[in-house]
Amino acid sequence: MLRTPRNDEKYYDSNGTGVNILVTNDDGINSRGIYDLVMALRDVGDVTVIAPLAEQSAVGHALTMSLPLRVTEFHKNGDFFGYAVSGTPADCVKLAMRTFLDERGIAKPDIVVSGINHGRNTAVNIIYSGTVSAATEATVLDVPAIAVSLTSYDMDADFTAAADFMKRFTPEVARLGLPRGTLLNVNVPAVASHQLKGISYTKQGASYWEDEFEKRMDPQERPYYWLKGKYVVEDSDRDIDDIAIHEDKISITPIHYDLTNHDFLRELRSSWPKGF
Amino acid sequence: MLRTPRNDEKYYDSNGTGVNILVTNDDGINSRGIYDLVMALRDVGDVTVIAPLAEQSAVGHALTMSLPLRVTEFHKNGDFFGYAVSGTPADCVKLAMRTFLDERGIAKPDIVVSGINHGRNTAVNIIYSGTVSAATEATVLDVPAIAVSLTSYDMDADFTAAADFMKRFTPEVARLGLPRGTLLNVNVPAVASHQLKGISYTKQGASYWEDEFEKRMDPQERPYYWLKGKYVVEDSDRDIDDIAIHEDKISITPIHYDLTNHDFLRELRSSWPKGF
Repeated sequence: MLRTPRNDEKYYDSNGTGVNILVTNDDGINSRGIYDLVMALRDVGDVTVIAPLAEQSAVGHALTMSLPLRVTEFHKNGDFFGYAVSGTPADCVKLAMRTFLDERGIAKPDIVVSGINHGRNTAVNIIYSGTVSAATEATVLDVPAIAVSLTSYDMDADFTAAADFMKRFTPEVARLGLPRGTLLNVNVPAVASHQLKGISYTKQGASYWEDEFEKRMDPQERPYYWLKGKYVVEDSDRDIDDIAIHEDKISITPIHYDLTNHDFLRELRSSWPKGF
Repeated sequence: MLRTPRNDEKYYDSNGTGVNILVTNDDGINSRGIYDLVMALRDVGDVTVIAPLAEQSAVGHALTMSLPLRVTEFHKNGDFFGYAVSGTPADCVKLAMRTFLDERGIAKPDIVVSGINHGRNTAVNIIYSGTVSAATEATVLDVPAIAVSLTSYDMDADFTAAADFMKRFTPEVARLGLPRGTLLNVNVPAVASHQLKGISYTKQGASYWEDEFEKRMDPQERPYYWLKGKYVVEDSDRDIDDIAIHEDKISITPIHYDLTNHDFLRELRSSWPKGF
């Protein structure tokens, strides 16, 4: 455990300052999901925002190596302040933890929250997700982390229920602690708070994209390809992320980056050639 | 298994056509590693190359969503031909498998090989690796895959030993088959072939980057940050990727994208709150 739970621990200390929360995302610092998340989390802790300046969806766990990073201050609506980074979600977390927070005299976070992503991050989507990659980067740096997504692509999607849940959930996770290298991947169904049917601790599912590329011709008659696809829900078991969501439950999946297939490793050692 | 092993199976059929191999990488189609790999694999199969036009290191498992993809033909030295894509390694594999190979009348691959990457892809590096992400995308699309890297950042690195090994190893993997969703992550020590001390089936290690950002000022006195770091080998166990390499063995790690931490999932279900 990164943080030993203590029964007497409060979210707030006597000065009224709460748990230190670092918030980032992949939809960009100007997106609705991060705004609603920050407004909610401020009630339960000290929130620092450091997020990509531009949208970074499906960026995976990218790090910016060949360009330097820029940081600019970002204000919105008179009540939202954060640092905008010219990089990826993983860049934001690494820069914050390794250099930027110290430089600004900001306390290291007790927990990192990435989101609220606009669109589900379940099953195979997890491997493409910038939202999850930011949380993974936090676990690489030994800070507990939560990735949170709203399972809707609707332009008018309502993040209220997800933000309300994170206000209750985030300090509890900071209190309970997480195993080293493990984060929680949360997906909230796109329904009103009163329609949510509780939580479910789930496994990453096997749903997939039946995707293809649409070939088009530009005005110079040169071809180009657009990725498009349909999401196919493969599972039916209730302990799977996409199925929990289908039942209007909040899906909470513990994921880690130990990618070794230990079962197959045993088979390799016992029955594959010892040399090639 | 994706492909049932048959003892009587040959790499070559009677027409002399071999196993169909799709080759990609993340260093870009013009890099030395992919050139040496393709030259070697041609001796054992029918090779199609579809790789990023530009270098894509540390790009993670990114997909290009907000731009269309362009494909151009790429020739080198009079003996190397491939398709260059204006995207990421994962884009290349998805585009090839979903649309492009069919369009060109090219047979679907029996196996995908990604590399030879210039630099090690072990431990935490795996999650940032474009080389591994291309192989992962192949497994998402149900094709066996190998990611291969040379553990040297030397500009004059010699890819010969790694290419020679892949010539022997690739058809064997196509013959033996891999479990669904699992790929092999191969790292070849940067020594001459005769100095290699065999292979080792390994686990992903816990080595990490002690990284930081160097702050500089541009001529307009605005700050920017460069990522830099030192790789810290954490493990000592011989069954770990980085340790096998240290002993001049070729490290072969089976990895998958089932990211669920099943042990912690059991703990969540038994001892965490049922609601928040």
